Amino acid sequence: MSRPAVAIAIGPADPPPALLAKAVADGGASVAGLGEAQGLIWAGTPGQFPDELPEAIEWVQLPAAGVEDWFTAGVIAAHPNVRFTSAAGAFAASVAEHALMLLLAGVRYLPEHLRADTWRQQDFFPHIGSLRGKTVTIVGAGGIGKALIPMLIPLGAHVIAVNRSGRPVTGPRIPDTIETISTDHLARVWARTDHVVVAAPATPETNHLIDADVLARLKPSSWVVNVARGSLIDTDALVSALSSGAIAGAGLDVTEPEPLPDGHPLWSLPNAIVTPHDSNPPQLRLAAFADHAAANVERFVTGKDLLAPVDPSLGY
Amino acid sequence: MSRPAVAIAIGPADPPPALLAKAVADGGASVAGLGEAQGLIWAGTPGQFPDELPEAIEWVQLPAAGVEDWFTAGVIAAHPNVRFTSAAGAFAASVAEHALMLLLAGVRYLPEHLRADTWRQQDFFPHIGSLRGKTVTIVGAGGIGKALIPMLIPLGAHVIAVNRSGRPVTGPRIPDTIETISTDHLARVWARTDHVVVAAPATPETNHLIDADVLARLKPSSWVVNVARGSLIDTDALVSALSSGAIAGAGLDVTEPEPLPDGHPLWSLPNAIVTPHDSNPPQLRLAAFADHAAANVERFVTGKDLLAPVDPSLGY
Repeated sequence: MSRPAVAIAIGPADPPPALLAKAVADGGASVAGLGEAQGLIWAGTPGQFPDELPEAIEWVQLPAAGVEDWFTAGVIAAHPNVRFTSAAGAFAASVAEHALMLLLAGVRYLPEHLRADTWRQQDFFPHIGSLRGKTVTIVGAGGIGKALIPMLIPLGAHVIAVNRSGRPVTGPRIPDTIETISTDHLARVWARTDHVVVAAPATPETNHLIDADVLARLKPSSWVVNVARGSLIDTDALVSALSSGAIAGAGLDVTEPEPLPDGHPLWSLPNAIVTPHDSNPPQLRLAAFADHAAANVERFVTGKDLLAPVDPSLGY
Repeated sequence: MSRPAVAIAIGPADPPPALLAKAVADGGASVAGLGEAQGLIWAGTPGQFPDELPEAIEWVQLPAAGVEDWFTAGVIAAHPNVRFTSAAGAFAASVAEHALMLLLAGVRYLPEHLRADTWRQQDFFPHIGSLRGKTVTIVGAGGIGKALIPMLIPLGAHVIAVNRSGRPVTGPRIPDTIETISTDHLARVWARTDHVVVAAPATPETNHLIDADVLARLKPSSWVVNVARGSLIDTDALVSALSSGAIAGAGLDVTEPEPLPDGHPLWSLPNAIVTPHDSNPPQLRLAAFADHAAANVERFVTGKDLLAPVDPSLGY
């Protein structure tokens, strides 16, 4: 095999992580020093980023999904002739897997099982649910929502995806049977909803989107899972609904406030599962980033549109 | 719409459960009394079964997956001109969902999370795993195994299915990329296995299939899930492997002995999740049975081979 024509540098660690070197090869390029490269995969911080890049560098892959810090540090403005891409979307699969785990653990009554030290089969039977035939409403159909939908379908769940436009959510493994509704019509779906997964960005419009009114419309068998931001749920209303049994439980990877303070009721409620914003832990990020980088290297090599381009005029 | 030409009776409850009446309609038949029917869906016990059936009854759907009790009670022998079908396969999806829940809860370190009453993000980060890119070996590729495979694929897991013949496992949502190996070659796969799900029948050959030797070949990050029968795992060897950290944990819906006695180490080991054989609770069985019955009504109406036929000469 001849040496690939496109060379990509990896920084700042030297030698680079093996997973990133493999990503470059998988994408059809060769790893080179910054002086001989046309692209740069950056796995460091904005503070470590070179002040100047060689003129031949056309493209830089940044390691974060949100790149506000890179704008603030002036990295984007300092290199007006370079195309930057973020890692937006790269980490969605791990968070979606975590959301599925929280939902299944809740529906199957796992927290109470883990407290048992005796064979309580007859006690537990009536509390064991299934996602089969149940309607899961996913609020937010970005990367996490789109990664979660194909995980729910084989379990026999019906999915309602909620996005801003209401335009049908599509994707490689998303079946046509998915129902999509716009945020404006959200009030209509609660009566049909068995479980809710919150996966939308935190904005003024989504603040306390799940409030006392929404919680009152859910079922005593409903689980609410939040893998987005704590501010999307009214925590006091949630604590009330969990305490009264208005809903069955909540699985929360994010909370408001965060970190959740010691002594908060969510730590002791038997039907609250709290994971401390660890659905996307550091050791899984590098592998996910490498997959994303490999896809972008291939696109760079073959001249296709890059994934997650950063638009300097929009600031993200 | 004209009235369907085929009539199916439902017993013993009168009126029959709405889900079963719907199953008959969904299958393209009408519900009738025993005297006007060609088929019978039976949701009761062998003891409740009629001693004699009208001559027009050609087919009886039994409500159990294992029909030993029906042979013992003489029900099958008493009706030599009737085709019986069991509910074999009907309950596999619920058990597969439970297996997925146990595996995800283990890999994502949920038991330790549920014991926390403070924000332990940095402690927990290194322990959070993912099924993405991991190899899950499913021992037993019957109904449960075949239901589990399509649930694992969207999570990015690689699946090795183990069956007696080694003939490739196929099915409606089972991709060609599944690797199938025969039980004879099982010893070869442990080095490549990240996690194990035990879903094979209990036979003399499968007794203590997962023993000290197999557990020693797994990884400190491996989870072992058992949703089949307790006898497939050497419990003492498992307790040792869990205590020493030779494997990461075990999720057990079945144990040996069963019920697991009070004070057994599996109740207190922090990396053992025990659910008391409740992966297929009574309230989920009726819905699953109704789906199975609907499929068989449709096959009966259209003259296709019935699912799960009982063979009087084989005894199952």
